[in-house]
Formats: sequence, C-alpha cells, structure tokens
Amino acid sequence: MALTNHKFLLAARPLGMPKRSDWTYTEETVAEPKEGELLVKVLYISLDPAMRMWINDVRSYMPPVGIGEVMRALGLGIVTASRNPRFAVGDHVSGVFGVQEYALTDGRGVTKVDTKIAPLPAYLSVLGMTGMTAYFGLLDTGQPKSGEMVVVSAAAGAVGAVVGQIAKIKNCRVVGIAGGPEKCRYIVQELGFDAAIDYKSEDVKTSLRKHCPEGINIYFDNVGGTILEAALANLARGARIVICGAISQYCNTGPMAGPSNYMTLLSSRASMKGMLVMDYADRYAQAGAEMAAWMAAGKLKSREDIVEGLATFPETLLKLFKSENFGKLMLKVG
Amino acid sequence: MALTNHKFLLAARPLGMPKRSDWTYTEETVAEPKEGELLVKVLYISLDPAMRMWINDVRSYMPPVGIGEVMRALGLGIVTASRNPRFAVGDHVSGVFGVQEYALTDGRGVTKVDTKIAPLPAYLSVLGMTGMTAYFGLLDTGQPKSGEMVVVSAAAGAVGAVVGQIAKIKNCRVVGIAGGPEKCRYIVQELGFDAAIDYKSEDVKTSLRKHCPEGINIYFDNVGGTILEAALANLARGARIVICGAISQYCNTGPMAGPSNYMTLLSSRASMKGMLVMDYADRYAQAGAEMAAWMAAGKLKSREDIVEGLATFPETLLKLFKSENFGKLMLKVG
Repeated sequence: MALTNHKFLLAARPLGMPKRSDWTYTEETVAEPKEGELLVKVLYISLDPAMRMWINDVRSYMPPVGIGEVMRALGLGIVTASRNPRFAVGDHVSGVFGVQEYALTDGRGVTKVDTKIAPLPAYLSVLGMTGMTAYFGLLDTGQPKSGEMVVVSAAAGAVGAVVGQIAKIKNCRVVGIAGGPEKCRYIVQELGFDAAIDYKSEDVKTSLRKHCPEGINIYFDNVGGTILEAALANLARGARIVICGAISQYCNTGPMAGPSNYMTLLSSRASMKGMLVMDYADRYAQAGAEMAAWMAAGKLKSREDIVEGLATFPETLLKLFKSENFGKLMLKVG
Repeated sequence: MALTNHKFLLAARPLGMPKRSDWTYTEETVAEPKEGELLVKVLYISLDPAMRMWINDVRSYMPPVGIGEVMRALGLGIVTASRNPRFAVGDHVSGVFGVQEYALTDGRGVTKVDTKIAPLPAYLSVLGMTGMTAYFGLLDTGQPKSGEMVVVSAAAGAVGAVVGQIAKIKNCRVVGIAGGPEKCRYIVQELGFDAAIDYKSEDVKTSLRKHCPEGINIYFDNVGGTILEAALANLARGARIVICGAISQYCNTGPMAGPSNYMTLLSSRASMKGMLVMDYADRYAQAGAEMAAWMAAGKLKSREDIVEGLATFPETLLKLFKSENFGKLMLKVG
C-alpha cells in the first residue's frame, strides 16, 4: 500500500516574516528504500530561529535551502522500513528530516535515541541540538567560573532556559531576560534563576545595572539588537559574550542592527565570540549523558511547546519571531 | 628666574570634531618642585586617537578629562629640576605630561628613556605606547601563527604600521588598508606588507576577497565603521578580530555605527576582542627590548609625523581624524 508524504517546500525567499505564500504545501507518494536507505516516519519537527537564516539567499555555515526544496528541519521519527544495517524497523531516530511526514535517508547524520532515558520530545530539546548549543556555548565558549554573573537573553526559550540552569549547576549567579511576567516567573520560580528582567516592561540596561552591580561576566546572546547593547553597556572586565543567535533581527526587512556600543569590548577587555553546535558533534554523546543525569537528578528541566499538525507549519514557525513560544517549539506530526 | 608654562585646557566638550573654541590656551608661572617632585620640560607631545574619547563625558577605562583641566597627553621631556631621588636633571623621560610646556610630577608613571638606543621621538612611536599597543594587540590578543593572513586598518598609521611589520616578522601574510596611493606604496615598498588596499579608491570588501581568498585569520581594527564590516564579511573560520580603535567613529555627532554583519562571528566561529595596552605594563620592558632589537636589525621601521609648535595643537590633532597624518603624529614643543 503506497504511503503519501505531505511536505513543505520553500516557494519564495521571504522578506521579513515568512508568509504562507512563501511555502508550497504538497504531497507525493513515498518511495521504497533502496539498498542502504531507511524510511523514517517523522513524529516531531523542531522549529528553530536558525531556520529563518537558512532560507535567505546567503551561504553562511550551510548552503541556503533552495527554492522548490523541502524545508530543512531537525526532527524525530520512527523507522518504518530499513535496508540499512545500522537501523531496524521500530528504532526511534533523530536527524535532519525536513518539514514533511516521511523522510527517506541513507542514514548519514541519523542517530538512534533511547526513549527509556527520556521521553521522545526531549531529544529535540534538552537532549537535542538546543541543549547541546546551550551546553557547549556556555561551558566551552563562555568558560564560566564559580560565582560569576551570567546573563542570558530569550531565557525562557529552548536554549536560554538550559543555559541558565547549567550556569546554576556551575554555581554562577544567573539573570534571565524574557518577555512577560509568566516567563519571568517561570525562570525564577521553576528553573531557579536568581532574577529575571522583563524586557517588555523594564529598561533592560537599567535593570542589568541593578542586578549586576559588578558587571556581567558572561552574556549569552540569543537575540541581538537593543538587548545586546544593554549587555555591552554592563560588562565586567574580561567579560565573554557568547554569540548564539540574534532572533530580534532575523525578520528585519533591512540590514541587521549592529551593536553601536561594541567599543565597550575595549574598555572592558571583553570578547564576543560566535559558536556553532555542529563543531562539537564528537562530544554530543558525553554531553548528552551528563545532561540526562542532571535531568534524572531534577537539576535540569525541559519544557516543550508542542503544536499539533504539520499543516500549521507556516503559522507555528512565526511564534518564534513573535516571542510567543514558551520552551522548545516543535510540531507534532499527526 | 621664573619660567612660564603654556598649556591647553579643555574648555568645552566637543560635538564631533574638536574646534579651537573647545580649548583654552593659557599660561602660568612654573612652580618649583616640592620634596619628591620633579619638573619636566616637555619636548614632544603624543597625539593619539584615544584623546578624542578622553574628552567625552563618559567614564571608560579612565575618567574623562574635566572641563578646565590640562588636556591629557603622553609626552617626552627632559628633567630640568628634581627633588625625586629616581630622577636627575638631564634625564630624558616619558609620561603623561599633558598638552603643555612644563610638567610638575611626583614621578608616578614617569619612565626614563635611553636616547643611545633610539632617537627620542621613537619613544612615543615604536618604542612607546603605540608600539606596545601593536605588539601586545597582535601577539597576545591576535595570537598569529606562521602563514596566517593578517589584515590591519589605518595601516600607515602609528599602530597599524607596527602591527603589519611584526606580523611579517612572525611569517604571516599581511594586507594593509590605508588611504591614498602614497600610504599604500609606503606600506608595501618600504615596510614589506604583501599588499595594500586604498580605501579611498577601492571597494574594501571586494579587495579583501581578492587578496584573502581563504579569508582573514586576524583582523586588527583601528577604524571601525564600514571597514570593520568589510573585514567581518571576509573572515576565515576561527578568525580573531582585535579591537584596538574605531577612529572613523570618534567624531560622529550621533551614536557610533555598530557592525551590522557581526553575526559572521557565528558563521565563522570567530571572536572580536578588545585590548588596552596599559594591562601589559609589566611586560613593556621585555617588549621594548625585542622591538629595539628588531629596529637595530632593520626589520622594524619607525615613521614619525612631527609638527612644530605647541600652539598648533587644536588643528594638528585634527590631522588624525582627517587621515592626514602619515606615521606617528606628535607635536614638537618649541
């Protein structure tokens, strides 16, 4: 019996916020795996800020998604057919499966995940790329020392929430910047941050000065824009800024805003460094084991924002850029 | 016989380019040194881009010069009277003597210089703070490796010319960015840079792509603005940007321009780090000895742009911000 695959193709390069007309929703008959291939039924699709960058016509750390191609996305699924000796039917797997219901793959970049260790969605969240980004961005690029002041933006988001919790595990003081009282309450009361700044109702620069009177030692930036400038205005000597994202700028229709006060890097002898999680692939397993142990010990909580229905993709993706997600945003495929 | 000291005081905080009316030129009778003090007759006054920052009403790495205070400046002089056992009449000394003819000091921060090793002006140039800035900025912050591609802006300026020459000594390939054919010819033919880009007649981003097809490993930035953006657009993976200055932005009447494409730090896994030479004070002597040896061996050339007359200070300072200096700019005091 032939299976049908529904999928989203990139139809046009968006200007600003991607519109539904920038996508083509289409279907096809699923092909049988050839020798060496496996067929994955996709169960969860990760929605990430970086996806907005992947559809610009700019070669960054990856080539852009081409017009007419399946939209690139990380996902989780179950193997439904396999002619690849590494995978058996019934295996749960993660990989770059795209925004679609079925992915036919040769298995490169596909990893088995163990649902006995954690529920499946955690492998797109704390135990997935977002968790790894937080882990290596904070620990390897940020190099936190006990007692240091760590500030993270988009603190109730997928990466930010993990950054703050790991910083607490490493005995840092942690201030999170998030939008709205519910997210601020969550990061302090449920995740154990020392303080929260609501960027929707507070002047972030002033609040950072209040919460970090001796300056920020590590600023983990997910947002760019004026919040990055507020952090630059409050650096301690020798501060490290981890550049992980700039979501406030991704849907600009003009050029991104650069931080006008970047010269505080000089007065503070500070650094600003970019990181990409894929560079740490050979350490994912070790980091995953450590994160799973923290989860088991109740030190690290995972929160997912799961939206049902592949067909909602164009609108659900925008939750990221409107700060409407609360935790790791993903689609559950029906 | 009482001596007269002429001096420049800060009269007003300039907006944009400092005007003559932002200064007060005045005179006073020189006081006798008290116990522990010495009197220095100033011979050369260093004119540096950082001076523009020191007169903004912003506490940076130093407090700003106050209204009515002698303008802060590094200088070289000769001791004409001393009640300080560390200094004798006739000693040549360097220190923060200010924009004036005589400086009365308790000797803190004053260093003796040896005119048998190098001519006096070299102690404001290659063997002074500008040379130290180049040395530690390139070697300590930049961490050059043999064969790497180093790009420096304001390459015919005091710091840039030394950065490029040290990079050549360290077996790097060096491209300098400078304004006009004379400066470009100088850095290639006299200083041994591999190539020069004339920002006044070339598109810097395009020229960098041509000269650095595998990307820039170290960009030493003295200028900021669009040239920093051109470098950010051409980084090699793991590149280091040394933030030393941003002279293109110091006389802005509005906010500085931040680099709109700073997110290439992420795609290139690159870093941008600020440095301040004063942090290396305990290593000046060792660096100075090494630089003096390079000078003696003909590997390191010093070029000074010496303007005569203290009274010309307000106009001579502007040469820096109009890119009219060629080498280390200083005033010779009459």
